[in-house]
Amino acid sequence: MRAEIIFTGTELLLGQVLNTHAQCLGQELAALGVEIVRHTTVGDDWEGLTSALREALRRADLIITTGGLGPTSDDLTLAAVADVLGLPLVRNETVLSWIKEYFARRGQAVPENLTRQAYFPEGAIVLPNAAGTAPGCIVEKEGKIIVSLPGPPRELTPMFEDHVVPFLSKRLARGGVLNFRVVRVTGIAEYAVQDLLRDLEGKEKVQLGYIAKPGEVHVRIAAVGRDAAEAQQLVARMLKEVRARLGDYIFAYDEESIEEVAGKLLAAKGYTIAVAESCTAGMVAARLTDVPGSSAYFMGGIVAYDNKVKEKILGVQTEILRDKGAVSPETAAAMAEGVRRLLCTDTGIGITGIAGPTGGTPEKPVGLVYIAVAVPGQTVVKKYNFPGRRFAVRQGAANAALKMLRDLLENDGGSSP
Amino acid sequence: MRAEIIFTGTELLLGQVLNTHAQCLGQELAALGVEIVRHTTVGDDWEGLTSALREALRRADLIITTGGLGPTSDDLTLAAVADVLGLPLVRNETVLSWIKEYFARRGQAVPENLTRQAYFPEGAIVLPNAAGTAPGCIVEKEGKIIVSLPGPPRELTPMFEDHVVPFLSKRLARGGVLNFRVVRVTGIAEYAVQDLLRDLEGKEKVQLGYIAKPGEVHVRIAAVGRDAAEAQQLVARMLKEVRARLGDYIFAYDEESIEEVAGKLLAAKGYTIAVAESCTAGMVAARLTDVPGSSAYFMGGIVAYDNKVKEKILGVQTEILRDKGAVSPETAAAMAEGVRRLLCTDTGIGITGIAGPTGGTPEKPVGLVYIAVAVPGQTVVKKYNFPGRRFAVRQGAANAALKMLRDLLENDGGSSP
Repeated sequence: MRAEIIFTGTELLLGQVLNTHAQCLGQELAALGVEIVRHTTVGDDWEGLTSALREALRRADLIITTGGLGPTSDDLTLAAVADVLGLPLVRNETVLSWIKEYFARRGQAVPENLTRQAYFPEGAIVLPNAAGTAPGCIVEKEGKIIVSLPGPPRELTPMFEDHVVPFLSKRLARGGVLNFRVVRVTGIAEYAVQDLLRDLEGKEKVQLGYIAKPGEVHVRIAAVGRDAAEAQQLVARMLKEVRARLGDYIFAYDEESIEEVAGKLLAAKGYTIAVAESCTAGMVAARLTDVPGSSAYFMGGIVAYDNKVKEKILGVQTEILRDKGAVSPETAAAMAEGVRRLLCTDTGIGITGIAGPTGGTPEKPVGLVYIAVAVPGQTVVKKYNFPGRRFAVRQGAANAALKMLRDLLENDGGSSP
Repeated sequence: MRAEIIFTGTELLLGQVLNTHAQCLGQELAALGVEIVRHTTVGDDWEGLTSALREALRRADLIITTGGLGPTSDDLTLAAVADVLGLPLVRNETVLSWIKEYFARRGQAVPENLTRQAYFPEGAIVLPNAAGTAPGCIVEKEGKIIVSLPGPPRELTPMFEDHVVPFLSKRLARGGVLNFRVVRVTGIAEYAVQDLLRDLEGKEKVQLGYIAKPGEVHVRIAAVGRDAAEAQQLVARMLKEVRARLGDYIFAYDEESIEEVAGKLLAAKGYTIAVAESCTAGMVAARLTDVPGSSAYFMGGIVAYDNKVKEKILGVQTEILRDKGAVSPETAAAMAEGVRRLLCTDTGIGITGIAGPTGGTPEKPVGLVYIAVAVPGQTVVKKYNFPGRRFAVRQGAANAALKMLRDLLENDGGSSP
């Protein structure tokens, strides 16, 4: 089933209101297995609304409209729906009695323009509004379905979930169901991710998509199956292949918060942690403490931006800084072990690198970062080359450090002494 | 001028990403006096994109596209623009040299698919990308203008403001001219801001708008004048009144980066800085070092989450922690002075507070934060009550600390010894 969503409201066009419906309806429809082909936003005018409806009717089987169901003169949606489907508007006596009751309870007469809300395209299924006075409706004609929902999120959401989802679920039992997963990688540029996956694109009805964000790239794996099980299986099979190709670049899946996962592992093992950061300068500490309750395991950190801080506070040896340089695996390891010693914790992280824009050399270019994680019994150091600019390099390094911590804790057999 | 915006990205259709461009572009175009008649969102597919462009060309004079400028095979925007306008794609040697330089600085060869980003519809004005590798462009043909911008907000916003607004302003010079300023406040809730300004709303053709963000509220002052001078004067007059009402809650104006302003003041005075953070746990250090070149004045920091770190590393006296508590003006001052002594800097910041969700008491509720700033000759401590949840409290505290630093440096007559 191909669907389009039409959002109405001049306030959306002018940016006075953020359109959050686009996200929540998009997610819910995708989850139902509806293929969404377009979103359109038009103002509260007859011409804009009816032309958008007519065009959508040519392309899609299902059209969802939001807004324009109220009692004022700029609420045109149901009249427009009736018009484009060639149906008359007829008065619904049940709805009229709801409106009368609503005002009777308040000891008021029904305002004249409120009775407008009792008129629907002929044959419409009326959807009650749990949080307002304007009902929505579903109209079907010649294989096309138009669902009209109110604009306010607190009215739209329950109406959609309570009435539209059950209706569509029945209709979609025959159609395909969509499943998707998101794989999040760091330390590699978007084009290089695609190079690794290009030959998998379009295989077995599975779609691959790429989204670049500062310090990470999202790979979206999506498939439509005959049912939920088949869709899930198609995605799972491709996910396995993608994991094999991207391996160590992967730091998280879907909406997973890596700092929360790492925090839970620390808490479960009874480990405490401290961090020593140079180029990320507090970003890893801030991420770890973004998790409520992190004070149980996070003791503190040293932002060792200047070399004197690395030397004097963290105890990185002068010889290491002089012979290997501040950006070296040796310095990263000495930082991780130094902060662990200084703050008397079980685990430590050390990060040193070149965020740019200046400071790069042919041997040590912008983007080069060494990350060390010290857990009881071992210290692991890794070298990364993060693509992008200053902020992306720093974000990438923070993602990679949290991933290294999680991996080490997952594979760590020991527990706190 | 009638305009439409076309957003591209399957992730937008599926609701994986919230479309914030719809709001910010809507506001900026409305501010310029452009009449926005439609927003359309399509996926990363040729058919959807070219049909949306063709339809929009029939209705509008100006079309703005977002997304699809990257190097991967699902980035189709410029090819689609060229196709619907009947123009060839031609290689831009300047852009090609930018791409080559970017990779040369990293000691890498240009990946093959990256050269795609040097092809533009014939005659296009290329728009440099201050925060990424994909340039945007403006193409004009037979009275129609198509502006293509990148998808990531960090790239789109500066490109739009620096290149598209001046371009459109020239074209639109005949209509009314809009001017606006944004006043950014912290430490106060959105409803309380509105309470302070309510009687000013709608006065003298000036519009006031409010946007709540984590840790800050934006007050937007906008006015349309017959010419730029009149619009500016209307806004300036209202700004003066708003400043008088909001006073010390104001921490920044417009897009101003407070960490950059504070950094410039430090550099000008030859001062160095160190920070000691408890509840913000590295956020202020990360903000200060977001500025390229900050290593000239930023030495480092201590994330003193656990009290032992405050005591052992920063030298906060046991008696202060015992008698006044970790969240107290005395502890904040001792942290600022302690980190300044420890890292031998001219200035220091100390932050301690209760970010929540737990840890609050009737005397010391969630949101209570003490911030101390030590400059040569004086240490100033302030008490704040930040509204909102954990992340908002932390962001608010970071904003307030940077504001206190700037204010003190601006009013500080001395210079480094």
